[in-house]
Amino acid sequence: MEESRQEGSGSMTTTDTMSGSEAQIRAIVQERVAALRERDADRLAAVYAPEIVMFGLAPPLQDTGPRVADPAYWRPWLESWTGPITLDVTGLDITTGGDVAFCHSLNRMRGTKAGGGHQDLWFRATLGLRKTGAGWKITHEHSSTPFYMDGSGRAATDLQPEASNA
Amino acid sequence: MEESRQEGSGSMTTTDTMSGSEAQIRAIVQERVAALRERDADRLAAVYAPEIVMFGLAPPLQDTGPRVADPAYWRPWLESWTGPITLDVTGLDITTGGDVAFCHSLNRMRGTKAGGGHQDLWFRATLGLRKTGAGWKITHEHSSTPFYMDGSGRAATDLQPEASNA
Repeated sequence: MEESRQEGSGSMTTTDTMSGSEAQIRAIVQERVAALRERDADRLAAVYAPEIVMFGLAPPLQDTGPRVADPAYWRPWLESWTGPITLDVTGLDITTGGDVAFCHSLNRMRGTKAGGGHQDLWFRATLGLRKTGAGWKITHEHSSTPFYMDGSGRAATDLQPEASNA
Repeated sequence: MEESRQEGSGSMTTTDTMSGSEAQIRAIVQERVAALRERDADRLAAVYAPEIVMFGLAPPLQDTGPRVADPAYWRPWLESWTGPITLDVTGLDITTGGDVAFCHSLNRMRGTKAGGGHQDLWFRATLGLRKTGAGWKITHEHSSTPFYMDGSGRAATDLQPEASNA
């Protein structure tokens, strides 16, 4: 549970602070953390609505449900890691309004790939959610790093949150 | 006005289709398009709330208001172009709930930089908005390209929307 409690760089801007909705959305974020740690495709897929529009870290520009909400979509990627995938969610900021919400955070993902390489990446994460008959579900996800506009075309995969934002 | 009407790749998933809120948010998106075309820093800054959290195309990981809501933040970048910045907003998908909304689209930005180079970039755009006393304002923006996970570290600045997503 500790990961999503690292609120150092975020301010609470909910319309109804620590409302039931916010607690439920925080639980969804935490469920994603647990699913990655356990590399459990069923748990991971279950947080998404069938209409999910995914802007992922890797190409293509977007991927859309219902296949993104299917465990089969996640299994190959989860199995490309040899142990737990550790996701630290920092500065989680949730905005809720009725049955609609969005949140954003700066996430750090760490683990070891089957190829042998240790991965350690900070990225930005935005989620859009809707309250459905089955509870809150993620209908939009946007994960990314920036890129260097110095002509190199390099993705900025070496960044960390700045002190000025902490 | 045509740019934001290119709905080919998006489905409408608003809770209240073409509601007043949705029309107002569509106007905000369009105002951003106009501000870029005119390279008008005052108009561009005015769409943001002082608490804006910006995940931009370029580093750092995030930039936060109120300075992002200040025209001075935008002026140097706008002045680095020699003519209109053309932003095509495609597949705009708006979800509204009370005084909270989020939307996403695939955007194409084109223009000529002062250095002489012609730019033409597809990227993913997500906006989070809140209804304030001054109308709807953008409180969160996330713009990005994916990056190639082939060990090259290259940003995927050469992508276009896929036919399968259209």
